[in-house]
Amino acid sequence: MIQALFQEKLQVLNVGLSSFADSIAMAGGSALQIEWAPPAQGQAEVGRDLARLINLSAVETANQTAFDAYQSAQPVLRGIGIAGQVIPNMADRMILHSGPPIAWRDMCGPMRGAIVGAILYEGWAENLAKAEAMASGGEIAFEPCHHHNAVGPMAGIISPSMPVWMVTNTINGNQAFSNFNEGLGKALRFGANGPDVITRLKWMGQVLAPALRTGVELLGGMDLKPMMAQALHMGDEVHNRNAAASSLFLKRFISALLKAHIPAADVSTVVEFIAGNDHFFLNLSMAACKAMLDSAHGVPGSSMVTAMARNGVEFGIRVSGTGNRWFTAEAPLVDGLFFPGYTTADAAPDLGDSAITETAGVGGFAMAASPAIVKFVGGTPQDAIDNTMTMTHITIGRNNAFTLPSLNFAGSPAGIDIRKVVDTGIQPIINTGIAHREAGIGQIGAGITRAPLACFTQAVSALANTIVDG
Amino acid sequence: MIQALFQEKLQVLNVGLSSFADSIAMAGGSALQIEWAPPAQGQAEVGRDLARLINLSAVETANQTAFDAYQSAQPVLRGIGIAGQVIPNMADRMILHSGPPIAWRDMCGPMRGAIVGAILYEGWAENLAKAEAMASGGEIAFEPCHHHNAVGPMAGIISPSMPVWMVTNTINGNQAFSNFNEGLGKALRFGANGPDVITRLKWMGQVLAPALRTGVELLGGMDLKPMMAQALHMGDEVHNRNAAASSLFLKRFISALLKAHIPAADVSTVVEFIAGNDHFFLNLSMAACKAMLDSAHGVPGSSMVTAMARNGVEFGIRVSGTGNRWFTAEAPLVDGLFFPGYTTADAAPDLGDSAITETAGVGGFAMAASPAIVKFVGGTPQDAIDNTMTMTHITIGRNNAFTLPSLNFAGSPAGIDIRKVVDTGIQPIINTGIAHREAGIGQIGAGITRAPLACFTQAVSALANTIVDG
Repeated sequence: MIQALFQEKLQVLNVGLSSFADSIAMAGGSALQIEWAPPAQGQAEVGRDLARLINLSAVETANQTAFDAYQSAQPVLRGIGIAGQVIPNMADRMILHSGPPIAWRDMCGPMRGAIVGAILYEGWAENLAKAEAMASGGEIAFEPCHHHNAVGPMAGIISPSMPVWMVTNTINGNQAFSNFNEGLGKALRFGANGPDVITRLKWMGQVLAPALRTGVELLGGMDLKPMMAQALHMGDEVHNRNAAASSLFLKRFISALLKAHIPAADVSTVVEFIAGNDHFFLNLSMAACKAMLDSAHGVPGSSMVTAMARNGVEFGIRVSGTGNRWFTAEAPLVDGLFFPGYTTADAAPDLGDSAITETAGVGGFAMAASPAIVKFVGGTPQDAIDNTMTMTHITIGRNNAFTLPSLNFAGSPAGIDIRKVVDTGIQPIINTGIAHREAGIGQIGAGITRAPLACFTQAVSALANTIVDG
Repeated sequence: MIQALFQEKLQVLNVGLSSFADSIAMAGGSALQIEWAPPAQGQAEVGRDLARLINLSAVETANQTAFDAYQSAQPVLRGIGIAGQVIPNMADRMILHSGPPIAWRDMCGPMRGAIVGAILYEGWAENLAKAEAMASGGEIAFEPCHHHNAVGPMAGIISPSMPVWMVTNTINGNQAFSNFNEGLGKALRFGANGPDVITRLKWMGQVLAPALRTGVELLGGMDLKPMMAQALHMGDEVHNRNAAASSLFLKRFISALLKAHIPAADVSTVVEFIAGNDHFFLNLSMAACKAMLDSAHGVPGSSMVTAMARNGVEFGIRVSGTGNRWFTAEAPLVDGLFFPGYTTADAAPDLGDSAITETAGVGGFAMAASPAIVKFVGGTPQDAIDNTMTMTHITIGRNNAFTLPSLNFAGSPAGIDIRKVVDTGIQPIINTGIAHREAGIGQIGAGITRAPLACFTQAVSALANTIVDG
């Protein structure tokens, strides 16, 4: 079947005994071995709920509606705004964070570090100690980015005076927001909050943001979907590898920037900053994915996942047919490649809203387009292809706007179906960065992780309860 | 063997009966079917010459020397010059062209069209008729670019006042030159010579060249090999697909350009020109390949090919161990994708020095890195991988600086061995553009062609005659 879909050489998913997979591999074919697990992890009640949902025409129809809305979305970068002014329901002393809701006392080190940094950036406190006291003293409201149509990588911290990308899905008008990417290493989103980090954030607000705003206005906006599609043909998966997409953005943006009557020195620093950060496009990719998925959210009966996000303690998902409820489980650790001097022992658990890219059919789901990424997250190019092939077993369809050259230009698997995840036990794969578990340090590596099954089993039962048998 | 070399899934080269290949394909493996042909095309004398050269330690040693010189070369863009001032032995009224030597009366339409355009550009004649009379009247000397350490795509026309890239192999100091890329469609190199073409050439000389010169000087030169290697990880094969390489060049160059105190309007037009031409890097890639291969040329006894070039009538090769002699055969037609309204009937035979990229182990030889190129030259992504795998059978080694992600980062097959080509009958594969057969029209498509075996059989006999049996 996959063979027919992809006009590709034999690709087999082998569940259970590995001997069959071995023989296929020996014959030169590619077979992926999945440990057999009983559906719904053998939980009888979840199994019954799953049985009610599978092949239920109401769910199939709802999923088609949700998937079509996602598939037809046209995310366009419309401008740059200030978070407190443009993000809905953003209060004066509110800080947004990644993942499902979490209280200060429960937050992981990097998120606390990033919040303290944001408080210093806002000037609400003059030193780390006072900033921490303020954060723990209940003086600041903490809410998930996802509760405000926003997404942020890693700690995902967005405070009121930060500049944000404003992306609109021109098909049904919904908006999505994300902060700017600071680059690798010591960055706020990884929990670093030193003077250099704060200074760069201020420069981003005072120089970068106005330049980007003027440039984007001169361009009359920027279609993000074709840019992402082109990047997939240039070795990016637009989550953990954005080298091509960032170059394409700069190429598009630079001609406008040069017409913008901005001081030459500023043009220089802005261009060098963008040219020097191969992850610059990540936050735009995330906002585009958020805009695509929000248009698929809220379809009664739909088992399509519309958000996967992590706060470093809990991994949470949202499903189109179950409204704004989060289904959470403990955030997993990330298996990956560490920067020199660091190991798994130093790593914070899985963190960030960037899994919105996998939810939208790129990132780990489009890894087949990005063989070179294994140098960053680990594994082999064949693993990258296998990851994409495996995701076809838990998705509703393929996004024909995001074609994968190495799979003969088949569309990327997209629209995670909680029923298929629970039925097969195949966990959605996620490419991600790795933050140090302590505040103030930053990124220490990158790798691959998988969404916890427990999120999906809860979601299946919750969705089943919304369905009235007929 | 290939399996071991590439730690890859089974890849089989099947010579002769196709039934075996069919069964491997059915088993999910990849098998490439080669029509069986007797070595040396059954020519007894060539067969004897080949037998003398195969496993001859003198040839093996010479090839290692030649291959090492190619492999260790470090091509660096050192500056921009004016052809007449910097290219060795360039006379006042001389025009360089692509491929082996050819007289005006024998030249193909696009080459004639390009020469006429160059005469107008130089101001040697005021109209097409007078320019053509001048060209046919023997007033101008025509010589191959390759006779002057230069290379040019398609017609490869370089006239004295044209700006040229100056590339130096810093390991042994040899220099290589190429002209600038004008973009696709109506361009001099494809035989177009209308006012728009000449106007653009003048702008390239008056605005683009000085800006590039200043920028490259401020950068203190540019290492081309790492840029090409990075582009291979971004879906380019740096012959017919240079989208990533051109972006990387712009990213590198722009910061210097912005510091160069060049009028803002010129900076704008220069950036838009480079950003608007995904083939901009091609001529730099060619000059880099020429610099790498010239350092491997002239090793007595070596059967390594150091140049493949076409003038639209003849296809010619040069071999390290046979000096500057060309071995030629009729230029083949190109099998490819045509722009709307054009067919094979409109196409000129294979044309240009750009096959220097395949000679250097990129282009068609590195096609496995560029699945997306099949949208431009035809075929499937699997064909692209098969093309690279097949070239491993006729090459001396692999260039470990040019790694191919889809082949688990194996080096690209490089160093064409005339003995292996004649012995296996496998013809070197070439990605190329297609020019209209008539003068003045331009590019009509792009595709794939193969170097004629006759060039290699002649070379085998010539090399055998240089070897004294011991």
